[in-house]
Amino acid sequence: MLNRSDKTSEATTAVSRRHFIVAGAGAAGVIAANPEFAVGAPALAQDAKALPDYVAWKNANAMIVHSKNTMETKREAFGAGVITPADQLYVRNNIAAPGNDIVADRNAWNLSIEGVKNPRTMKLSELKGLGVDTVAMVLQCSGNGRGFFSHKASGSPWKVGAAGNVIWSGVPVRAVVAACGGLADGAKFITGTGGETIPQGLDPKKVMVERSVPIAALDHAMLAWEMNGADLSLAHGGPLRLVVPGYYGVNNVKYIKRLAFTAAESDANIQTTGYRVRPVGQKGAPSQPSMWQMTVKSWVTHPLKDNAKGPTQIYGVAFGGDNPVKGVEVSTDGGKSWKAAKLIGPDLGPFAWRVFVLSADLQPGSYSIASRATDSKGNVQPEDFEPNERAYGHNGWKAHAVSVTVV
Amino acid sequence: MLNRSDKTSEATTAVSRRHFIVAGAGAAGVIAANPEFAVGAPALAQDAKALPDYVAWKNANAMIVHSKNTMETKREAFGAGVITPADQLYVRNNIAAPGNDIVADRNAWNLSIEGVKNPRTMKLSELKGLGVDTVAMVLQCSGNGRGFFSHKASGSPWKVGAAGNVIWSGVPVRAVVAACGGLADGAKFITGTGGETIPQGLDPKKVMVERSVPIAALDHAMLAWEMNGADLSLAHGGPLRLVVPGYYGVNNVKYIKRLAFTAAESDANIQTTGYRVRPVGQKGAPSQPSMWQMTVKSWVTHPLKDNAKGPTQIYGVAFGGDNPVKGVEVSTDGGKSWKAAKLIGPDLGPFAWRVFVLSADLQPGSYSIASRATDSKGNVQPEDFEPNERAYGHNGWKAHAVSVTVV
Repeated sequence: MLNRSDKTSEATTAVSRRHFIVAGAGAAGVIAANPEFAVGAPALAQDAKALPDYVAWKNANAMIVHSKNTMETKREAFGAGVITPADQLYVRNNIAAPGNDIVADRNAWNLSIEGVKNPRTMKLSELKGLGVDTVAMVLQCSGNGRGFFSHKASGSPWKVGAAGNVIWSGVPVRAVVAACGGLADGAKFITGTGGETIPQGLDPKKVMVERSVPIAALDHAMLAWEMNGADLSLAHGGPLRLVVPGYYGVNNVKYIKRLAFTAAESDANIQTTGYRVRPVGQKGAPSQPSMWQMTVKSWVTHPLKDNAKGPTQIYGVAFGGDNPVKGVEVSTDGGKSWKAAKLIGPDLGPFAWRVFVLSADLQPGSYSIASRATDSKGNVQPEDFEPNERAYGHNGWKAHAVSVTVV
Repeated sequence: MLNRSDKTSEATTAVSRRHFIVAGAGAAGVIAANPEFAVGAPALAQDAKALPDYVAWKNANAMIVHSKNTMETKREAFGAGVITPADQLYVRNNIAAPGNDIVADRNAWNLSIEGVKNPRTMKLSELKGLGVDTVAMVLQCSGNGRGFFSHKASGSPWKVGAAGNVIWSGVPVRAVVAACGGLADGAKFITGTGGETIPQGLDPKKVMVERSVPIAALDHAMLAWEMNGADLSLAHGGPLRLVVPGYYGVNNVKYIKRLAFTAAESDANIQTTGYRVRPVGQKGAPSQPSMWQMTVKSWVTHPLKDNAKGPTQIYGVAFGGDNPVKGVEVSTDGGKSWKAAKLIGPDLGPFAWRVFVLSADLQPGSYSIASRATDSKGNVQPEDFEPNERAYGHNGWKAHAVSVTVV
């Protein structure tokens, strides 16, 4: 989906960024709450900040806190365990999370279902009766990898940690549609609206989280109330979240209060001009590609810095986005030569990531260790990735490589 | 493995129990620390007790605390997510866990490797270089289901919650053996010794955790330093645990400090007389079956009590022990009739459990909901399960059924 042929503009971006900001938010209160929309904000330092209260249960040692609404997983925390535990999973909220009261009585949560033959509101307790399924998938922020671009795009400077591999349980959206008599005529998009509180005095369209994805996503979309075998936490969208396997994080609407099957995409700014891929310096517009399906990607998680000489396991994670990952190659010389890595551990399905491993015997010296994944359709990670205004979707292997000194 | 033809003795006499106790421990200090060895202790109440300090990070709402060393997962906490999160996983220590200092510098942990051509001690950092793999498996206490027996066996009255499905990462034991020049001649067992501190004044053989499993377990055995994608916690055996997929929990030796390939089973009491299956009233002896491979088992996790009438998803977990589970049937009338359930979600491999689901439309009334699993070799859960002295290995489907009232 992401258009790698976007032409890069060298134009200094102050003006065009301001245009984007006006379109995207336009109120100081929102800018404060939403670093993605901040104008010219310096990249937030990656040093230790305290976890905000609503995620105080997270593993502080595994997280980099960028702001109250943006925290990523440290690269070394991913390990080889295929699953990202909830207390190490990144957090990214477009506006502040609702209060904890919405998870006090989970089954009482209401979802309005529209764009079906028989529109209605259902409580979560009723949704739970309609069906249950479980899917493992990569959850990844559109801006994961932004920190590898050099054009100083606004937003959190995520490196690799705005992503995780998690297991969702909930009701297939298809089962909900069936219980409502089927789709209304003309439905072309699944549109989810989040339950965040809109700050008073702001135009809701400018700040609300309402995203649309193509109706084809109905094949796998789910309304989830569990993550990794536990009740879905507030921080990750509980009591109910729209889950769209293969799609970037923003499309997985948290605290979903309205599920609509619509003829057009949402007219909220987050859809019309936000999360649009365009050359550096341009403002967002509906004609540009939206951050929908993810692309093939991988990164090494071990070793990352110094390493003792001798037998070493080089490993990391790889996924195909909306396709399964097929294979991964690893280079220890910055891409001059490549060896096929082995995929280990359980295969959690087409939308999940796999752990790859290459056994090596490293002698003292300096190494540039890179990984390059290929998906089931033959798409390969590119060496480089051209900048785009908001620095979305970076999957270039060179920037994700790590320098390791073996002594 | 578990011998279902053990003849049941009605003689639950104090004398024979005392004999077992003498063989198993024989010191008041140990009895206090080890409820499994307690004489005639009343079944511990299942009401709320505070979590001990070393597991204060667990989700208290999901746990039943039996004692400082024994906590099980509440049945309703399993959900449909296939994985058991670390903060909901049961805990069972045979003697008190070591201090937290052993996980302060994980890579410095030492493992003595014996019964190989070139015996030696390796640090965890070195083990990590030898190989890495990941396996999902059911971890289950031998006594899981003890609470369904009526013969008042000593030990924690676990119902279904002394079990979980978790993902381990570590080095295959085979790779460690290879790095040590291969097995020494005559190796017939893998013997692991735990790093617990033996209380002063006690005979180590009577209290130490040292278990042996057949050398055939080498096919899948692992030395694990991660669980569910995170560093292995002290409570679950960190920094290093022997993992033997398909085998009962006790064989997965925590804080392993010695890995030996031996001609005979360990002479520690936990192996010679502990974890032996025999008729009620008999004492443990090496001639009896040891609690090694697990058997086929399942239980419903939803619904458990009252339920609204109408569409309902009946679900639970099922596993084959040392075989994959092949299918599950569900009954809503106490076993008079059965319907095939559907297995949902990712298949995490032969040693993991699956989530099963049956969609039902329940009208007001009383239901006895049961599940009955079949493994890949055609083994089916029995209706009943004959008592054995220590109440190990219960997999009878009738006792695991739940009574549900639909209104």
